[in-house]
Amino acid sequence: MIGEFDLIKKYFSGHDKGKNVELGIGDDCALMSFGRDESLAITTDTQNEGIHFFKGTDPYLLGYKSLLVNLSDLAAMGAQPRAFTLSLTLPDSNEEFLTKYARGLFELAKGEHVALIGGNTTKGPLSFTISAYGILRWGALERSNAKVGDGIYVTGTLGLPGLYVEAGYGRIPLDKSVLSSLCYKSMHIECRCAFARDLAERELSSCAIDISDGLVGDLMHILKLSGVGADLQLDKLPLPQELYDYVADPVERYKLAAWGGGDYELLFTVPSDLEEDAQEYFEECGDQVTRIGTITDSGQLRVMFNDKIFAPAMKSFEHF
Amino acid sequence: MIGEFDLIKKYFSGHDKGKNVELGIGDDCALMSFGRDESLAITTDTQNEGIHFFKGTDPYLLGYKSLLVNLSDLAAMGAQPRAFTLSLTLPDSNEEFLTKYARGLFELAKGEHVALIGGNTTKGPLSFTISAYGILRWGALERSNAKVGDGIYVTGTLGLPGLYVEAGYGRIPLDKSVLSSLCYKSMHIECRCAFARDLAERELSSCAIDISDGLVGDLMHILKLSGVGADLQLDKLPLPQELYDYVADPVERYKLAAWGGGDYELLFTVPSDLEEDAQEYFEECGDQVTRIGTITDSGQLRVMFNDKIFAPAMKSFEHF
Repeated sequence: MIGEFDLIKKYFSGHDKGKNVELGIGDDCALMSFGRDESLAITTDTQNEGIHFFKGTDPYLLGYKSLLVNLSDLAAMGAQPRAFTLSLTLPDSNEEFLTKYARGLFELAKGEHVALIGGNTTKGPLSFTISAYGILRWGALERSNAKVGDGIYVTGTLGLPGLYVEAGYGRIPLDKSVLSSLCYKSMHIECRCAFARDLAERELSSCAIDISDGLVGDLMHILKLSGVGADLQLDKLPLPQELYDYVADPVERYKLAAWGGGDYELLFTVPSDLEEDAQEYFEECGDQVTRIGTITDSGQLRVMFNDKIFAPAMKSFEHF
Repeated sequence: MIGEFDLIKKYFSGHDKGKNVELGIGDDCALMSFGRDESLAITTDTQNEGIHFFKGTDPYLLGYKSLLVNLSDLAAMGAQPRAFTLSLTLPDSNEEFLTKYARGLFELAKGEHVALIGGNTTKGPLSFTISAYGILRWGALERSNAKVGDGIYVTGTLGLPGLYVEAGYGRIPLDKSVLSSLCYKSMHIECRCAFARDLAERELSSCAIDISDGLVGDLMHILKLSGVGADLQLDKLPLPQELYDYVADPVERYKLAAWGGGDYELLFTVPSDLEEDAQEYFEECGDQVTRIGTITDSGQLRVMFNDKIFAPAMKSFEHF
């Protein structure tokens, strides 16, 4: 069995060069340095087998997604990703697993120019904890910055990861080949870092969150922290083709999109006087962006469908 | 069962204020900011039940030690600890466990003025991953900086955690009450951050490592990275009283001290022309410090006992 030092050397070293990285892997700590007026954004996330992914999932996809969920948090702050550390817990040092895992991990890391600057491996049930670091030279996209009148926007499409989980548990019966394609698409998610950084840098938004727990739940975080309400237009949610192909009931489709979770798309607000400029940028940038609602002073989240109330209003905020 | 957000709020929030911390818990990322000429030291470490600690270990000690091992890495760089993130995996949200764990964690965190700025909790086999952040405004204590002629020093005593592990596995039979006292002392370890920071700031050393894998193994890391050899005086190692009390064979005592591991003491070198100044500082500072050997140009680690070769020499470095 390959030892920890050899394992790190073989699979994970040599990817530790990058901007702001002073010292990479090999000492007690990594070192980063910063310019004036720069802030460091820090996030951490754990993915456990049987909780965050099904046993037997392609290690390549696990490598990709374990980093993606962290970069998604950096995106939701508007930060430019720079580096990450990896804590890897493995039941055994399976070299085929490690080769594939590293391939997925570094495909995304290289694409986004983020350096692996440290970490550790240990024996135990399969689990990945990544901490990721990004730079901010502009205002952060904070959850507490939504204002009454702002438009609510989302990148990409919603509901495919939710559909995959339902199908994976057998609650929606699907062919193995379809399931495999859904697995790939629900894990090999596009990184919204560049889009979010531009949004912050151009000052088109100052409020965002990434959708991990589901659109409605994550929107509630924004509403509570900003002390506002919202009207959400369920019928406006951008759905992937698969939801039309494999979910017959239209209501179920929108439920998966609004409550399914695991989308790792960016949910953000744009002040009404900037919406025209923002729209222009969205057309240029190439990322799919959809307006799905408006921030209100109602103190409630109202979920609408074709202008009718769809779900009981949820209290987002109480004035004292 | 208490949910993730309530759990974090109840046990872990409100400890996120501190120097360099711009934004703490509650958004997608934490934010840190830095002055000019400051570097950030970053480290991460995982502790898994059954691998790094025995099942049933007092959660208070787990809280303390899970942070201590990370602060120990910051110390080994000479960095001033500032903040950390915690990824907690629990089989269930046991409130008694969490209360005790948080007590141990924040006892150390408050004592060292480090803020908990983020993290996550998830369901699974008991495991803690902490990433810790420290500031350097002076030269780092890097493993690669040992020079021929340097004195080799160690803080505290060595071998107690090694004795505890041997006794815990029943290889050294000890009373339950003795075992419990050994457990406490081997986990409630003194933090060497202030000592190490002073060492770096006063430029008395530029080379250190913390002893996690065992003195000999960790000294080898320094030797390999610095391209030097060393003579280690086994008989000079500082032993705790317990090794005399519970280990009859003197050779076994020194073996536990040299190879036992888990000490989280600081191993560092001092250039020969600074050893007198260093000695003065050691007397002032209150931390126990012992000279245990010398860096040589032999390209080998020679372990000596009363000036006789104790173990076969290990190749530390090959000139090409």
